[in-house]
Formats: sequence, structure tokens, C-alpha cells
Amino acid sequence: MDVFIEPIGRLINEFSHLPGVGKKTAQRYAYKVVDMSEAEANAFAEAILNVKKKVRYCKICGNFTENDVCEICKRRDPSVICVVKEPRDASAIEKLHEFKGVYHVLHGVIDPMEGVGPNDIRIRELLARLQQGNVKEVIIATNPDVSGDATAMYLARLINPLGVKVTRLAHGIPVGSEIEFTDDVTLSRAFAERNAI
Amino acid sequence: MDVFIEPIGRLINEFSHLPGVGKKTAQRYAYKVVDMSEAEANAFAEAILNVKKKVRYCKICGNFTENDVCEICKRRDPSVICVVKEPRDASAIEKLHEFKGVYHVLHGVIDPMEGVGPNDIRIRELLARLQQGNVKEVIIATNPDVSGDATAMYLARLINPLGVKVTRLAHGIPVGSEIEFTDDVTLSRAFAERNAI
Repeated sequence: MDVFIEPIGRLINEFSHLPGVGKKTAQRYAYKVVDMSEAEANAFAEAILNVKKKVRYCKICGNFTENDVCEICKRRDPSVICVVKEPRDASAIEKLHEFKGVYHVLHGVIDPMEGVGPNDIRIRELLARLQQGNVKEVIIATNPDVSGDATAMYLARLINPLGVKVTRLAHGIPVGSEIEFTDDVTLSRAFAERNAI
Repeated sequence: MDVFIEPIGRLINEFSHLPGVGKKTAQRYAYKVVDMSEAEANAFAEAILNVKKKVRYCKICGNFTENDVCEICKRRDPSVICVVKEPRDASAIEKLHEFKGVYHVLHGVIDPMEGVGPNDIRIRELLARLQQGNVKEVIIATNPDVSGDATAMYLARLINPLGVKVTRLAHGIPVGSEIEFTDDVTLSRAFAERNAI
């Protein structure tokens, strides 16, 4: 006889797919759902389906949007582009409410060990944006790790000849950690002290 | 402008209703869902809805079941009843594969500070089961805390006069912790050393 009846066992299994969630935590989450009202559980399930149904990638920057073009690309200064690895990095920077430019989400970084080359991330799209002119600065905000550094160097070598200033966030960011989880003060300083590369 | 687009913000909010989940963790979970395939997200949402749709309470013991009567009540020795606070406690005991009897889930414990009296939990249903005869022993497995102890004492005083043996799990269980999270060895010893009260 199983310890859990099938619907609960199945939900525990689903929760254990979430990052950092083990069996015990998944159990606690599943019991919480069992204790939810029907309306709460429906809202939860609906929010999951809704994300898959509505979240798309911005045609210009590659960030999450509900439309063809994201609100940031529509409304903000297109002359400064901040290049990030993932949408979550753009969210971390947005929380500062300091950066007034637009983003370019690479959806990855160059990582030969993982078989990810320059053509596997959105570098071609970035160059196309730069070739339309009007961009004064590209701020590279990849993580301060081996593949993030390599990607930054690669981009600097490609973009500098185009006459566009390339900067990178200062290494105030603790090395080895991730932009997404950097505290606001450190991330803010890294923005202020960005250096030409 | 919000840091997150609406569907992602909404999902982060839903995840933050789970026990012990803060803003950052909820974000990580939401991004994971965005990265899921459509099929994976559907399976996740379906598992949540399924739990609310299919999980009911056993008419006899009050534990979770998909039917009127749970598999444990249907198949196991009804002469020994283990009384627990919540279904999750029964699951913790089931994992041992040692207990051969049936359960009675109180869905709470007597806790005057919280306004929970004997009539607010499934004590009446337990007495009805005992009055049908054939029960030789009631093992009380409430948590070893103030309200768990009080409930055990209250039940012992009610049940002893009926000529039914009442025992309680030995206090090998670390006081202040919860049955759900007790390691198997300790929980197993507590079962073996249960004492008459």
C-alpha cells in the first residue's frame, strides 16, 4: 500500500520538480494545497497555466512580455542597452528603478564546455539592433563567472569596432554569486562603477 | 512599471502562499514554470486541480481517500486504532510499514487557547467506533506538545472506562518537534515502547 493516495503522491512528485525542493518540502506543499479552498487551488492552477499561455518573448529584446514587444522596449531610452543572460537578471536590475535604458536578453552565455557557442545565444539579434544605429552604449551584465566573463569579452571585441561604447558592471558583485541574488546596494554600485572594456 | 509582467507576478504571488516560501524562492519557482514545457505545466496544474477534485475524507477514519472508505480501513486489522492529529501524521507512520492496524484522524487537538474544544475535533466519531466493540487497543499518537498531551489525557479518561486499552507512543520522539518530521528509527522505537496511560 502506498504511503500517499495517488492524487497526493502525484502532486508531491510535481512539486519536487521545483528547484531545491526535496521530498519533505514537496509533501508540505502538497498538504497545503489539500487544505486550500477550491477557489484558492483553482487560482493556483490557473496562474500556472496562464504563465504558459500568456508569457512570450519580446521580439526586440527577448525579455518576457505578454505582447509582441515588451513595455520596456516600447517606452524607454533605446540608446543604452543592458545585455543580460536571463530575464530574471533583467528583473533584478529593474528592482533598482535606476536603469533607464532597454535590455537585450541573450538566453544563455557562451560556454564551450556545455557546447554553447556564439550562435546558440541571441548575439546575432544584438548586432542587428546595433547596426540600426542610435545605440550609444552597451552595458554587459552577464554573471561574473567564467562563461559570463568570456561572453563579455567576446561581445566587447565584436561591438567596439562598431563605434559603440561597451561597458561592464563593476566587480562589486561578489564573484561566484549570481546577479539575480545580488543585494540592491551592491548591484547599484556595480552599475555606477561600470568600466569600459 | 512593474518588475514582473502580470502573469509571472501573479504566479510568484501564488507560490508565496506555500509554507516557508518567501519572495525570492517564489520567483525561482515561477521562472522554473516559465521554463517548463507546455505538457509539464499542464501536468503540474492538473495535479493541483486533481487533488481538490479527488481527495476526500474516509467516512470511518477521517484520513484522505479517493473513495468513501480508505484502503487502510478496508483491509487492515480494525482491532487496533492509532489516533493522530492530521493525515500527514498517519503518512509518517505508514512509512515505517510496521503498524498493521487502522487510524483515526482527529483533524486537530484540544487547544483551549485557540478555542478548540473536544467537540471541534473527531472525538465523537472515535467513541462511536469504540462502541461498536471489537477494538482491543487505542494507540494515541498526538504530538508530544501541550495540546497533544492534553488531548491524549482527555481521550484516555474517556476510553479507559470502556474497557479498551489505551496506549501512547513512547517519548522517544524529541519533545517540541512534530511526528511528521521524526526520523524513522525514533518513530519506530516510540511505537515499540508505547506505554499504557
